[in-house]
Amino acid sequence: MRAIPDPVQNLIDAFSHLPGIGPKTASRLAFHLLKAPEALSLELAEALEGLKSGTSHCQQCYNITLAGEDICDICASSNRSDETICVVEEPLDVIAIERTGVYQGKYHVLMGVLSPIEGIGPDQIKIFPLLERLKQEPVKEVIIATNPSMEGDATALYLQQRIQPLGIKVSRLARGLPVGGDIEYADQNTLQRALAYRQTMD
Amino acid sequence: MRAIPDPVQNLIDAFSHLPGIGPKTASRLAFHLLKAPEALSLELAEALEGLKSGTSHCQQCYNITLAGEDICDICASSNRSDETICVVEEPLDVIAIERTGVYQGKYHVLMGVLSPIEGIGPDQIKIFPLLERLKQEPVKEVIIATNPSMEGDATALYLQQRIQPLGIKVSRLARGLPVGGDIEYADQNTLQRALAYRQTMD
Repeated sequence: MRAIPDPVQNLIDAFSHLPGIGPKTASRLAFHLLKAPEALSLELAEALEGLKSGTSHCQQCYNITLAGEDICDICASSNRSDETICVVEEPLDVIAIERTGVYQGKYHVLMGVLSPIEGIGPDQIKIFPLLERLKQEPVKEVIIATNPSMEGDATALYLQQRIQPLGIKVSRLARGLPVGGDIEYADQNTLQRALAYRQTMD
Repeated sequence: MRAIPDPVQNLIDAFSHLPGIGPKTASRLAFHLLKAPEALSLELAEALEGLKSGTSHCQQCYNITLAGEDICDICASSNRSDETICVVEEPLDVIAIERTGVYQGKYHVLMGVLSPIEGIGPDQIKIFPLLERLKQEPVKEVIIATNPSMEGDATALYLQQRIQPLGIKVSRLARGLPVGGDIEYADQNTLQRALAYRQTMD
């Protein structure tokens, strides 16, 4: 007895392949779309089909840009300083930093992070294109904004060792307590860092 | 400065229209698909396009069935008893009950629930087709499996008043403590029901 017809099961399976969507959520989404106007499904289908064909990577910073554009808006902008490059792991990190509204420099997206366990070395991510940029652009500071994880820290260290000899300042995002966080619930590592890098009040 | 290109933003917007998916999850899904092979996006797009065109409603019980099939597998099956109809709100509820593996009768999907506040009366859901079925099929018992909510209870009461005069037994799913639940954390209503409908051990 087949309780779920194939077209519905296919959609449940396709949703289940997405990160963070388990079989129950996938069913709920599929049955929601069954009840909703067909336009909702078709809008999502169209957006999915246009995703890869409509986008490419900026040839300078490797952020996502429109297909057919060599250089992204941020790289092309004359309002953004050429003297600072913020190095991130993923395009999503650019969006998070842009949302703060306080950063006025350029970016470089590594498209990953060093991870010897997964066999990802400097050749597999966009580290050499970054070093190439540093030779050609008037960069005074590289802000490393990799994730505060083991791989992110290892990547930051590697970058520091390659960039500092070029006479360029290397900095990284501050570690400490998250805003709105609670000392009582902060993990041991975060609290150790917050103590070690305590900031003078003046 | 547009940090997210339109093709990506379109997909984020489309995902955000789904229930339980907020802007952050939608971004995460879109950027995951950007990194993943294009086949993943296209598989999902195809499933979405085939959803409505590939399905229809069973003309007997209103459960989801394959397009072109008047009657669903369960209604058509000779292995399922005609003497019991289980009345549910949504097709998803059929799947939940089928998953138990213990129900061998037929179903009737109301496609909603009575809700005077939202202006949904007996005409807006599949109540009259159910009453029609009861005249024509050899039904001995109707099991009402609407949700244990205010609207579900009101719908159950309405159905009972319409069905009992036909000389057909009306029952509803048991209320009580969920299996694996903890008395300490059970809400007051559930505990009241569990006491009132306590079951004799023999």
